[in-house]
Amino acid sequence: MSFSLTILGNNSAVPAFGRNPTAQVLQLQGEQFLIDCGEGTQLQMAKFKVKKSKISHIFISHMHGDHYLGLMGLLTSMGLLSRKSEIHLHGPALLIDIINLQLEASHTELPYPLIFHPLGDDRVIAETEKITVSSVRVKHGIECWGFIFREKKNPRRLLADKIRSYQVPHAVFETLQQGGDYMTEDGRIIPNTELTEAHEPAKSYAYSADTIFDLSLAEKFKGVDMLYHETTYLKDQETKAGERFHSTTIQAAEIAKRAGVKKLLIGHFSSKYDDLRTFAIEAKSIFENSELALEGTTYWVS
Amino acid sequence: MSFSLTILGNNSAVPAFGRNPTAQVLQLQGEQFLIDCGEGTQLQMAKFKVKKSKISHIFISHMHGDHYLGLMGLLTSMGLLSRKSEIHLHGPALLIDIINLQLEASHTELPYPLIFHPLGDDRVIAETEKITVSSVRVKHGIECWGFIFREKKNPRRLLADKIRSYQVPHAVFETLQQGGDYMTEDGRIIPNTELTEAHEPAKSYAYSADTIFDLSLAEKFKGVDMLYHETTYLKDQETKAGERFHSTTIQAAEIAKRAGVKKLLIGHFSSKYDDLRTFAIEAKSIFENSELALEGTTYWVS
Repeated sequence: MSFSLTILGNNSAVPAFGRNPTAQVLQLQGEQFLIDCGEGTQLQMAKFKVKKSKISHIFISHMHGDHYLGLMGLLTSMGLLSRKSEIHLHGPALLIDIINLQLEASHTELPYPLIFHPLGDDRVIAETEKITVSSVRVKHGIECWGFIFREKKNPRRLLADKIRSYQVPHAVFETLQQGGDYMTEDGRIIPNTELTEAHEPAKSYAYSADTIFDLSLAEKFKGVDMLYHETTYLKDQETKAGERFHSTTIQAAEIAKRAGVKKLLIGHFSSKYDDLRTFAIEAKSIFENSELALEGTTYWVS
Repeated sequence: MSFSLTILGNNSAVPAFGRNPTAQVLQLQGEQFLIDCGEGTQLQMAKFKVKKSKISHIFISHMHGDHYLGLMGLLTSMGLLSRKSEIHLHGPALLIDIINLQLEASHTELPYPLIFHPLGDDRVIAETEKITVSSVRVKHGIECWGFIFREKKNPRRLLADKIRSYQVPHAVFETLQQGGDYMTEDGRIIPNTELTEAHEPAKSYAYSADTIFDLSLAEKFKGVDMLYHETTYLKDQETKAGERFHSTTIQAAEIAKRAGVKKLLIGHFSSKYDDLRTFAIEAKSIFENSELALEGTTYWVS
């Protein structure tokens, strides 16, 4: 099961040292989800060979420019490339006003349906065949949301050869996938374990967006397989981090530890840092399975 | 006299083949003017070591995204870098509404004065110590303006040693620079040629923005030293160019020839072209001193 995250931008605020503002693409089999869309995202997608056409859902965490200023360019390029399939856009309510004003200014009508869903309370905001996405309010200088992506998976997987040999009808597949037994036409009970095997557990990924250190997030991100938590600053900048509603390495790692996640990715680095190695060292001192989110790198959710 | 143009982006519409949307920086001694500001302009400025802090005036030709979507990021980055000096922004009237809505959405107050000047009729729109800038309406799918930058120069330059030896007072400097003679306190006439020498002629640069082939532009750009004219398409796409309010190589070169400019720079290449060499060949077939506008390259206005 391919479930992966590709980083397109890992920097905060002002681009620096060749690092770009925030954007990342989550891929699950054929489906692609774009999470935040800083300036230059479409250029980064071209550079790292991420296909614009496969993106079906876009999630914008908040209205700071480094998280959404690449969106208008991406949406209009998709239009110029004659996209027809719909895009679901999730973001703060004002986002759609900005998009509409810009479309009006350029006399542009997108050739595909752009379906906007304003963010609000914590809840499931999107669902596809393979994934559900929930929003999680986080504490930042302006309204801001994190997102949790959970793979949808039946507990049991059908064994094709057994299904054939027992001539199990389609109508009972779902029962079997949920763990039920099968009764044949002549009344015999075939136990579930003979017709199915356990799936690997469903995987999950959480994106903290920009947030102050907030222990309640450990509860909300409990047990996800991979957590991306912002670390705008190193640990010696804890006061500044708090004042600016951002987090440090130690704080991000503390959330990961308390949430019991499998892996922590850290990013959203301040423009003041050139060398990022200390970020990894500090995070690992609290939570061993920490890794830097590097642009152009793909991380597997496993 | 340093008067030069640095290309930051030379592509049209959708970024392609590593080429960026339109942006260029005109430099005249210490002054810097940004002309259009496609997505990623601040990243291109960093790459080519153009200092954001030196930009005093920004000119946006029209509201197609490939000409302005980098502006919001640039303006906010200037704010985050604690800029204090004012920026004069010239653009279509709707531009300031889009900026204000985006500032509101991010709860941002710029720490420097942003002075907006809506474009309108053809006229002088900006004047500094060293340059005057005029707007020129061009014909495109939406309202669009080109710009002409003219160096300001007095016809005559003072000869410092002579000014000292005759003890010429400051009050008459301007008269001398304009070609007048000097009468000493005791009534002697010192001819202008003894106190001054001729300046090199003032230089000029014109930017066509996006435009359909329009012969009236040859009159408006008459005699400029360097003309940037868009060439979205090669000559075999003349019909498509016309339908989309763009120009071909041959058409751009024809305007340059009729306007009697010294040098033609061509750019705004369509995303369908990878190899640009044919653009130069076709333009040169009509106007010999034609050159491709290449990203990261500086062209001298001379």
